[in-house]
Amino acid sequence: MRVDVLTLFPEMFAGVFGSSILGKAQDKGIVSLKPINFRDYAGNKHGTVDDTPYGGGGGMVLKPDPIFRAVEDLLMARPTGAPAPRIILMCPQGESFTQRKAEELAKEEHLIFICGHYEGYDERIREHLVTDELSIGDYVLTGGELPAMVVIDSVVRLLPGVLGNETSAISDSFSTGLLEYPHYTRPVEFRGWKVPDILLSGHHANVADWRRKEALRRTWQRRPDLLKHIELTPKDQKWLEEIRAEQDE
Amino acid sequence: MRVDVLTLFPEMFAGVFGSSILGKAQDKGIVSLKPINFRDYAGNKHGTVDDTPYGGGGGMVLKPDPIFRAVEDLLMARPTGAPAPRIILMCPQGESFTQRKAEELAKEEHLIFICGHYEGYDERIREHLVTDELSIGDYVLTGGELPAMVVIDSVVRLLPGVLGNETSAISDSFSTGLLEYPHYTRPVEFRGWKVPDILLSGHHANVADWRRKEALRRTWQRRPDLLKHIELTPKDQKWLEEIRAEQDE
Repeated sequence: MRVDVLTLFPEMFAGVFGSSILGKAQDKGIVSLKPINFRDYAGNKHGTVDDTPYGGGGGMVLKPDPIFRAVEDLLMARPTGAPAPRIILMCPQGESFTQRKAEELAKEEHLIFICGHYEGYDERIREHLVTDELSIGDYVLTGGELPAMVVIDSVVRLLPGVLGNETSAISDSFSTGLLEYPHYTRPVEFRGWKVPDILLSGHHANVADWRRKEALRRTWQRRPDLLKHIELTPKDQKWLEEIRAEQDE
Repeated sequence: MRVDVLTLFPEMFAGVFGSSILGKAQDKGIVSLKPINFRDYAGNKHGTVDDTPYGGGGGMVLKPDPIFRAVEDLLMARPTGAPAPRIILMCPQGESFTQRKAEELAKEEHLIFICGHYEGYDERIREHLVTDELSIGDYVLTGGELPAMVVIDSVVRLLPGVLGNETSAISDSFSTGLLEYPHYTRPVEFRGWKVPDILLSGHHANVADWRRKEALRRTWQRRPDLLKHIELTPKDQKWLEEIRAEQDE
């Protein structure tokens, strides 16, 4: 997979792209991650990429021309026959990013991210250039750079060969549709707080039952909205009734 | 404000903490941002901070001892009389991070973030050490580092003196409760696509009405859930009726 990121702050990406899973995925040749400064496409000697908004008001707006030209330069440089990339605008007005969207993007060969910073985007970028608009959550950030890193991390870790066995074996939250059950490791007693006996019992079926029930409990307590989207077995239903009764006690 | 981040990947933070708003906020002395490698608190010569889970299964679990000791070291080093910090665990099971939470955290003097990476956390960290558990969204990431950066960016930009006038004047999405209206800047015609006439009219009241209606339209089209949380004026109600009728045409 090839990932290009158009930004005015390419230096923000070095630490994240160079470390951990993203660094290793590049070393293995599975992905190429490239931040590109779209100020290089300003087309004027001052490197101006934004301007005041028509209609007045505060703030600045990113001009269409530099971003169109930066994207078109990337499109021109593709090998013959390469599939069209997804062109993704990171913005608060975008579609809410989810694990399902990460899985969809992981099937692509080429992603181009556009990251604004403080400024708004000229509407014509939104209407005539991008294929996707994504938001990572309902909070205000300084720019699209951190959101792009979040999307890239979630997508790249899904590519075949990126995660080793030791990490892919973890039962991720959201992959089962439930929040994770509680984990415990050594020591068996830490400052007087003990690991639940059942986890020390060696009885695999009981451990599996306890984990499923505790995953249901945590999801019911913290994110009951998630329960609507998964298929509950009759055993799950019984446990949920027990959990509700235990809560009322 | 002081912000400490416990992580096994402190090098991931340099680019983000050193650039843009976060870099400037540190230069101005408004915030101090410090990544700390909690492997330094492993207490063994191999630097082991995780272990296999009780009850079996794949994946590794972060041990309680190194993280407790790293946090306690930070607590001990505080000046006399300093208020207790918020101790924030970044995890998919956490409370959903929102702009309201950012505003709440911006009132604190000291934040400590704990970032796991691949691994789960020993439940005793969750139960007996942290004050908050936060999740930035329903997607799986490699670690808590990017989520911590997201929370820190959203909080620090709210601190007095961090944003200059040129940036704080932007009417952020979520601060009005609506998605932003469309922005346009020069040129007035770009590749045949023109700026709406009303924005060139110089009639401020008409521009303000157009913007409010388009913010309502975008919110209604993309995030109707947000409309439930804001107070609509009679004029807003009328515009929403028009928007619905225009959509049906």
